[in-house]
Order: sequence, then C-alpha cells, then structure tokens
Amino acid sequence: MRKVFQDELAQVGEELVEISKLVASAIENASTAFESADVDLAQDVIAADARIDFLQNALDERAIDILALQGPVASDLRMIVSSLRMSASLERMGDLARHIAQLTRLRYPSQVIPAPLADTFRKFAELDVQIARKVAELLESRDLNVAREIVKLNLEVDELHAGVFKTVASGEWAESASTSVDVALASRYFERFADHGVSVARKVSYLVNGEWQPEDIGGA
Amino acid sequence: MRKVFQDELAQVGEELVEISKLVASAIENASTAFESADVDLAQDVIAADARIDFLQNALDERAIDILALQGPVASDLRMIVSSLRMSASLERMGDLARHIAQLTRLRYPSQVIPAPLADTFRKFAELDVQIARKVAELLESRDLNVAREIVKLNLEVDELHAGVFKTVASGEWAESASTSVDVALASRYFERFADHGVSVARKVSYLVNGEWQPEDIGGA
Repeated sequence: MRKVFQDELAQVGEELVEISKLVASAIENASTAFESADVDLAQDVIAADARIDFLQNALDERAIDILALQGPVASDLRMIVSSLRMSASLERMGDLARHIAQLTRLRYPSQVIPAPLADTFRKFAELDVQIARKVAELLESRDLNVAREIVKLNLEVDELHAGVFKTVASGEWAESASTSVDVALASRYFERFADHGVSVARKVSYLVNGEWQPEDIGGA
Repeated sequence: MRKVFQDELAQVGEELVEISKLVASAIENASTAFESADVDLAQDVIAADARIDFLQNALDERAIDILALQGPVASDLRMIVSSLRMSASLERMGDLARHIAQLTRLRYPSQVIPAPLADTFRKFAELDVQIARKVAELLESRDLNVAREIVKLNLEVDELHAGVFKTVASGEWAESASTSVDVALASRYFERFADHGVSVARKVSYLVNGEWQPEDIGGA
C-alpha cells in the first residue's frame, strides 16, 4: 500500500512537470506567432491549450483520489494541496498564452504591436519564456535558487508593463485607440503570465521549507 | 470528535459566506467610487482588500487542518477541496474590485470612463454587483437556480465587454490612447470579476450534485 501511495505522489509531481513543459512550449510558440504575425502557429497554440486543460483536470482528479483514499498527512498532504494550487496557476498560464495567440489571430495579417513598442514586447516574450522554462526546472529540481530567479525576472516584467503605459500616455504616441487597446491587453497578458510563474515559485518554496507560509524568496 | 468535525466543516462554509459578502461590498463600493470619481471611497476599497486576503488565508489554513486531522472522505472531502478553490476565486474577485478602485485613484479627479461609454460601465457595475450578491446568496442557500442566474448575468457581461471593444474601434471614438487603454483595462476587470463568479457557481453545483464534473448550469 505505501509503495502504491508513493508511486501516486510521484506521478502527481511528474504530471506537474509535464504540464509546465507544455506551458513553456505554449508561451514560446505564442510569442513567436505574436512577433511574426504567424496565424498558423497561433492556431496551433489555441488548439494545444485544450491538452493543458485536460491534463490539469486529470491531475486534480488524481490528487483528490489520493486525498480520499490515502488520507495523507504532513509533507504528503502539503504536496497534494500545493499541487492542486500549482495546477490551477499552470492552467491559467496556458490560458494567457492562448489569449496572446488569439490576439495574433484577430489582427492577422497585421502585427498586433506597432513599431515603437516592438522591442519592448520582444523583451516581454523573452522574459515570459525564461520564467516558464524556469518553472519547469523548479518543479523538477526544487532548487530555491531557481525560485528566486523567477521572482527577479518578474520584477523586469513589471517594469516593462509600467513602461508600456508610460509610452502610450506620452506625447509621442501616435497610434490609434484600437491599437492602444491591443497593446494594453497584450501587456497585461504577459504580465499576468509572469505573476502566475511567481505564484508557482512561492508554492514550491512552501513545500521545500515545510511551511504554508512562504520563505522569503523576494518580491511582493 | 464527529461533532467537532461537523462544526469545523460548518465553520468553513460560514467563512466562505463571510468572504463573499465582503467581496460584494468591495465591488459595490468600487463601482460607486469609479462612477463618481470618489477617491476616498476608492481608498477604502483598496484598504479593505487586505481583510479579504487575510480571511482567505485563515479559511485555507482551517481547511488544510481539517484535511490533516480528520481525513475527510466523500462529500466532506469534496466540500473542503471545493472550499479551497472557491476561496481562491473570491480572493481574486476582491483583487479585481481593488484594481477598479486603483484605476479610480489613478485618474482622480477625472472620470476614468468618458461620456460615450458611461452607460455601458454603469451597466457593467450593476451586473457585477448582482453577480457578487448572488454568489453570497448561492453559498448560503446552495440553490442551483441562483447558480444559473449567475451564468446568465455573465453572458450579459460578456456582451458588454465585446461592445466596449467595438466602440473603441469605431470611427466615432475620439478619445485619447491613454483613455482607451483605461477603458480596455476596466472592461477586462469587470469581465474577469464576473468570470470568477461563474467559477464559484460551478463549484457549488459540483457540491450539490456530488460530482467533480459540473452539472450543466449553462455557459461555456
């Protein structure tokens, strides 16, 4: 019985890693599609999100079965409850990658982002892809240095997000209202994606430290 | 022991209702502040959000203690796991009410929303307040008719949200890029608030039906 239980716990951990890798692919492809107005790739991202949702449901059902059948306590219980929370964050990251792909499809064959902000959004995409890869790495390694790196990358994302709003409000901004709205929403999607990455990083830090309260890995 | 357990479960249910009532007050006050550019009321909403966050943490800790100490199964387990998920949705609704208040404070003494969309946002606010009140009612009554009403109200919110983007993209729209961005973000906050209300409605419907999969209460 204990062997089965430990296998099931390990399975939940592996499924989280699997989902996090799909999320990293999703944001990578969504960003590429977004930058190059590649509607086919955007379509792929939109279609692939259903797989993330399916795996999240499967993971949640497995976790709940473990709670019902094994009555885990202490660190095993923390692991299961944290997994339910992390799967929700990962699922949401998948949704946000899909939103970025949907915006790409909506404006095709045009670019969503006008020239004055193209570099900013390239940097946004790079940071989000890095965060997503580090989330997958963190879930595999449980190395809190990686959690701290995610928090730091998120600070850069927050700066870019604030910078976008300054640019749009500045006298030099000459884009249409509609383009301005697209820019604001896209900025919000990239920023929320990174927030959820930090949220996963915090939950891993609880697990590693055996606490429900986070170790101070930095950030708000 | 069973008596204590049942009391603890009931306590979790009561705390969810309490949080949902604070969320309803938050969106009501945030909407009033937003419509009337009332910076003091906006400030109250921002300050009050810490209380919602605190209560969510307390509820989650209680729920996890119950899992650890009582090893609930069947409907009790469903109730505890669903409560963890619903508390996350309610906390997020509180955040969104705070974001609406923060936008109010940022633009004070101006209105965030320009005249052509004032009626639309008044309707947005009405729908979100109704949804929040119905969420509190649903958590108390477990009446799935209320869950269905929430889903229907959310469809109206989605229509308003789509309408805002059409208005901004239309030839008649003559507002600045910065105002357009504020409008887009505010619309997104009201829309996400309603989505989380639907999410709570679905979770209550699982509980009532004894299923992890939702009864069809309508909506996507």
